[in-house]
Amino acid sequence: MTVFYHPDLEANTVVLSVEESRHCIKAMRKRAGDTVHLTDGKGMLAEAEIVSADLTGCVVSIIWREEIPARRLRLHLAVAPTKNADRMEWLTEKAVEIGIEKISFIICEHSERPKIDMERLRRIAIAALKQSQTCHLPEMETLLFTDFIEREKGNDTLRYIAWCDENNHSQLVHETLSQGEVLLLIGPEGDFSDPEIEMCRKMNFKEIKLGERRLRTETAALYGCFAIAAKQPMDAMCSPTMGE
Amino acid sequence: MTVFYHPDLEANTVVLSVEESRHCIKAMRKRAGDTVHLTDGKGMLAEAEIVSADLTGCVVSIIWREEIPARRLRLHLAVAPTKNADRMEWLTEKAVEIGIEKISFIICEHSERPKIDMERLRRIAIAALKQSQTCHLPEMETLLFTDFIEREKGNDTLRYIAWCDENNHSQLVHETLSQGEVLLLIGPEGDFSDPEIEMCRKMNFKEIKLGERRLRTETAALYGCFAIAAKQPMDAMCSPTMGE
Repeated sequence: MTVFYHPDLEANTVVLSVEESRHCIKAMRKRAGDTVHLTDGKGMLAEAEIVSADLTGCVVSIIWREEIPARRLRLHLAVAPTKNADRMEWLTEKAVEIGIEKISFIICEHSERPKIDMERLRRIAIAALKQSQTCHLPEMETLLFTDFIEREKGNDTLRYIAWCDENNHSQLVHETLSQGEVLLLIGPEGDFSDPEIEMCRKMNFKEIKLGERRLRTETAALYGCFAIAAKQPMDAMCSPTMGE
Repeated sequence: MTVFYHPDLEANTVVLSVEESRHCIKAMRKRAGDTVHLTDGKGMLAEAEIVSADLTGCVVSIIWREEIPARRLRLHLAVAPTKNADRMEWLTEKAVEIGIEKISFIICEHSERPKIDMERLRRIAIAALKQSQTCHLPEMETLLFTDFIEREKGNDTLRYIAWCDENNHSQLVHETLSQGEVLLLIGPEGDFSDPEIEMCRKMNFKEIKLGERRLRTETAALYGCFAIAAKQPMDAMCSPTMGE
């Protein structure tokens, strides 16, 4: 099954973008009368019939729609972008595959101001969404650490910050989490600055470790995605049937 | 701390390779008299003093050695290489960062015969070893699925195969594992062939899932690395202090 993307599936007739039309008609060789699956990236899955197999604007007619429920345990990843753009693109693709609800690229004091091409990252996220056949595209944004913290003051999310401190022994994989939203902060290569750590402490961020290794920024971020994916109720860690 | 690599740390005086010498003297600006750390990738960590800061063959004199114990729970990953070499290089880097003891690239029936540059993968593994400051370089090999299975018949490792079957509901993250070696088989994009699945069943491979998503080969492989890393005794999943 290939899932195609269209941001709005409310209408009964939908015209796919040039990119999606090419993928559908040219790459997947779909013809008028064929049925395809669509998602709006907001949880909607639909089946549709191709009315006109137009390479520049494939017209489809929706047969049925289904709302795919969001994950019980949701992850908002706030990560300092790496200097190397590839690593952020890779992280975006993998995070969408594993599962993620929101990615905030936060420019920290020790960030070597990277150029972030949000349009490109968004295209990568959509490709990963289609490839992994999921229906929830993460929200993505870029902002300054200070602005991010200022905004988060309003939220009562469960907050974690992963940073390199010998006195910090709590492991994210040891946390008992089963639902709600988790905010996980991952710092830049040079780690967070002392004032940044202080701001987080004032906001009751829990300081945690991601295993025992020294991980690159994007690897640490993905570790967080895997940890949260593994803690979803459907495959909750300590279920009675564990290991049976 | 930067760790440099030299395959043999038995002698008291060691000459670094051109690549390591350049990294040490040119990139890290080390001088004669400076102390550096070295690993042989077989568990040995050493501190050494630079005797001659030669760009083409930096000579160091070992001060002390320490045997870093191997992980209690070891992972042997057998993965069908992807057509795209980048994805295997990325997997190698990340697997070494997270932790892995052996990677076998197995050419399956549905593998689109990829070119695997083992020398390049080895260099990537060494760079990741240094970056993540670990002392265990994974064994790496390429072989045919059938030869791999033939050889494994002799071993009594705990064996898992991850493949896409609706009737398969066991999750790797639910397995109770704390020590010994685990063999995890990850198939190609086109999945394993029926005869390959049959061979594995005959050898009592346990069929498991890696979460609920459709993952790319390299993402599934990394999921396995994360799952095993999270199950190491030092941060065992269901420890009494869990969530405290």
